Amino acid sequence: MTRKIRLGAFLPGGGQHIASWRHPDQPADGATSLDFHKQLAQTAERGLFDAYFLADNLAVGFGGAREGGNARVAGFEPVTLFSALSTVTSNLGFIATASTTYEEPYNTARKFASLDLISGGRAGWNVVTTTGDPTAQNFNRDTQLPHAARYRRAAEHVDVVKQLWDSFEDDAFIRDKESGTFYQPEKLHESDHRGEHFQVRGPLNVPRSPQGHPVIVQAGQSEDGRGLAAATAEVIFTAHQHIETAQEFYRDIKARARGLGRDPGHILVMPGVAPFVGRTQAEAQEKYDRLTGLILEEDGVGLLNGLTGGTLDLRGYDVDGPLPPAPPTEGMKSRQALIRQIADENNFSIRQLYQWVATARGHFTIVGTPETIVDTLQEWFENEAADGFNILPPWLPTALDDFVDLVIPELQRRGLFRTAYEGRTLRENLGLPFPVNRWAGARAALQAAE
Amino acid sequence: MTRKIRLGAFLPGGGQHIASWRHPDQPADGATSLDFHKQLAQTAERGLFDAYFLADNLAVGFGGAREGGNARVAGFEPVTLFSALSTVTSNLGFIATASTTYEEPYNTARKFASLDLISGGRAGWNVVTTTGDPTAQNFNRDTQLPHAARYRRAAEHVDVVKQLWDSFEDDAFIRDKESGTFYQPEKLHESDHRGEHFQVRGPLNVPRSPQGHPVIVQAGQSEDGRGLAAATAEVIFTAHQHIETAQEFYRDIKARARGLGRDPGHILVMPGVAPFVGRTQAEAQEKYDRLTGLILEEDGVGLLNGLTGGTLDLRGYDVDGPLPPAPPTEGMKSRQALIRQIADENNFSIRQLYQWVATARGHFTIVGTPETIVDTLQEWFENEAADGFNILPPWLPTALDDFVDLVIPELQRRGLFRTAYEGRTLRENLGLPFPVNRWAGARAALQAAE
Repeated sequence: MTRKIRLGAFLPGGGQHIASWRHPDQPADGATSLDFHKQLAQTAERGLFDAYFLADNLAVGFGGAREGGNARVAGFEPVTLFSALSTVTSNLGFIATASTTYEEPYNTARKFASLDLISGGRAGWNVVTTTGDPTAQNFNRDTQLPHAARYRRAAEHVDVVKQLWDSFEDDAFIRDKESGTFYQPEKLHESDHRGEHFQVRGPLNVPRSPQGHPVIVQAGQSEDGRGLAAATAEVIFTAHQHIETAQEFYRDIKARARGLGRDPGHILVMPGVAPFVGRTQAEAQEKYDRLTGLILEEDGVGLLNGLTGGTLDLRGYDVDGPLPPAPPTEGMKSRQALIRQIADENNFSIRQLYQWVATARGHFTIVGTPETIVDTLQEWFENEAADGFNILPPWLPTALDDFVDLVIPELQRRGLFRTAYEGRTLRENLGLPFPVNRWAGARAALQAAE
Repeated sequence: MTRKIRLGAFLPGGGQHIASWRHPDQPADGATSLDFHKQLAQTAERGLFDAYFLADNLAVGFGGAREGGNARVAGFEPVTLFSALSTVTSNLGFIATASTTYEEPYNTARKFASLDLISGGRAGWNVVTTTGDPTAQNFNRDTQLPHAARYRRAAEHVDVVKQLWDSFEDDAFIRDKESGTFYQPEKLHESDHRGEHFQVRGPLNVPRSPQGHPVIVQAGQSEDGRGLAAATAEVIFTAHQHIETAQEFYRDIKARARGLGRDPGHILVMPGVAPFVGRTQAEAQEKYDRLTGLILEEDGVGLLNGLTGGTLDLRGYDVDGPLPPAPPTEGMKSRQALIRQIADENNFSIRQLYQWVATARGHFTIVGTPETIVDTLQEWFENEAADGFNILPPWLPTALDDFVDLVIPELQRRGLFRTAYEGRTLRENLGLPFPVNRWAGARAALQAAE
């Protein structure tokens, strides 16, 4: 079988772009409208996307605007939302973000196993450690745990969750009314985990779904993040502005996975792409200009201040002038340097800078026709930069519709993308292997050895 | 408006009665079938029930049978399940159980707020402290917290959750595209809670639903449980075999609530009832006999052993003979005494005893015609024993269908039950007041005083 591009759709009902909620196409109450989310899910399924993906915050998140201008200030919790959306779709996967720092593994394992069962094997878990003191302050702490401590806890959390997902073997349930045997007790297992952070006896009170385990997803770019991803992730979302850095990341992750004895084909690297699609280049540019024109100056400046942790205070400067010099500060050095580098490389005014950054907050923005967009995706896909892409339509629903109606057919025409779902589960569609239950696997290995 | 009976439906897909999964009517895989749960929800809505109610365990629960004979060993997590079921219903409420001991208030507040938003204001939270060492062992402990400590934590947990549910005032969201004002910052509030168990800054990143807060439900019978219920519950599920004890409980709860300055009409007491309905008494008895005849001896004896914490080991005794004398033991004294009392009062053999106990594990079982059943419900309702009932159909879907098709019309004929839903939210249907946002309320009080 030819290798195909995998596609995730990142569809926050409140919109991706900082001003998307002000766009005439987008319902202003999208973030809290179930009907709008149903529409997005059904469009993604019409486009044969592998999965609907949602990030998550455990605090009121930074929306990149003034206070009062942030349309992503409130919304649904992703697992409950996806449970509802799974009832109006049949093949689309659902990848929800959940925190290893602020949840207990038994609860994490259970909610994803339940979503997986409800959706018939279409769940994925985007594993995050959750940064920021404001979140820590919602969970009995004053400040967040150090980076390395969060990642140690994350690794153990994922391990415990995967143990719990194997509590029942796939054929544990007999359900024989005549004999009264509902399940085979010897196929129900306690994990009895005792580690640095967690002590969890098990078993989990949810059976395995048709896909065995929910798909494990990650997005870490740091050294700790790459290590955890190489060890446990099956899909990796990542952010790159250039093919060269994407290739470096792709090759590094695959090499790390190989080094850990994993099949690198079982870790799919999917960079984010924010597409503005037009039938002509001019039409695409017009869409870009229209959306960026909706950014209020105050919000744009606030976004730059926010992204640099307040170290680049631009209030009072002419937004159509250049980025002023700023004294070096201790906090957020690398982010401040990146923002400055983008401005310098492109000779951007303050306004042009915040317009560029506003689109997808660091993800790769493409303004083009279906042909030029697919040219780029194909180049990345065929040159060790990507196994697929996480599409971030800058405003909704139109930019998603555009991608489904214009770009998907071009991908299909070139044989790069499916023309029908391969299976019912997320794992089948992504071409990922079914995880053999560890207890059944151990027994089979023992029998083979005897 | 005349006072009406409120009805909850307790519908575990695996069935209520210990042998219900062996009944020919009941799908053996009901516990893990989404389609079966959808059918149950739609039947409950056809019957105009106020709410679908589910208990919960954070461990593989005691199913009352041999190992291998427990059909409730695994299933869905209730909040994710109800989120899916809310999409196939319009008026039915959903009361999910969640633990104050093994979850963090921010997560509890969030998942119920999200379910409430998804369902359009139809969520309820059954607050439990969760007993048992096996559960504690899934959450980093060897043994459970003492009873009083669990209840202190529960009271604070509920308090924090209710604070978080008020993070946004009801009119906080302007969503004015023209001005770019999405919400009014002055109508978003931090709770900044610092208590014995929790430190939670807030705000919650989910807005209030159409019913303001999910409905708070409880089921505690102990002194601590009654205290917590009187202080915070809006619906109380309770278990009574006789009208006299139900009246004692009802009057005590209402008096406690009044003592705390609450309107006793805003705490609905709903005892559990397990009905076997027949067009004739003989038909009802036949249904009872058929279901109880499906209990395997080994499961029935196991149930008695389990309910008494292993202190009443009946293996080896003649099941058609009397309950043997047993030495007094330290553990589970009161439960052992209750079991013995039921046997003595009714002159039950061991078999008759486990058959009686198997139906609804301590809830009130009625075997009768629609008329005699409604006679009983009416007597309880009109004599300070109940504001409504939590119906526990012993097997599914038939016993639920029987109740909807035969008992509901009789309740309606006597003017005791609604003929159409009064509103769209659970709170409206239960006749419970809309909880004024504490910040808006405080401001209004201040303005009135000036």
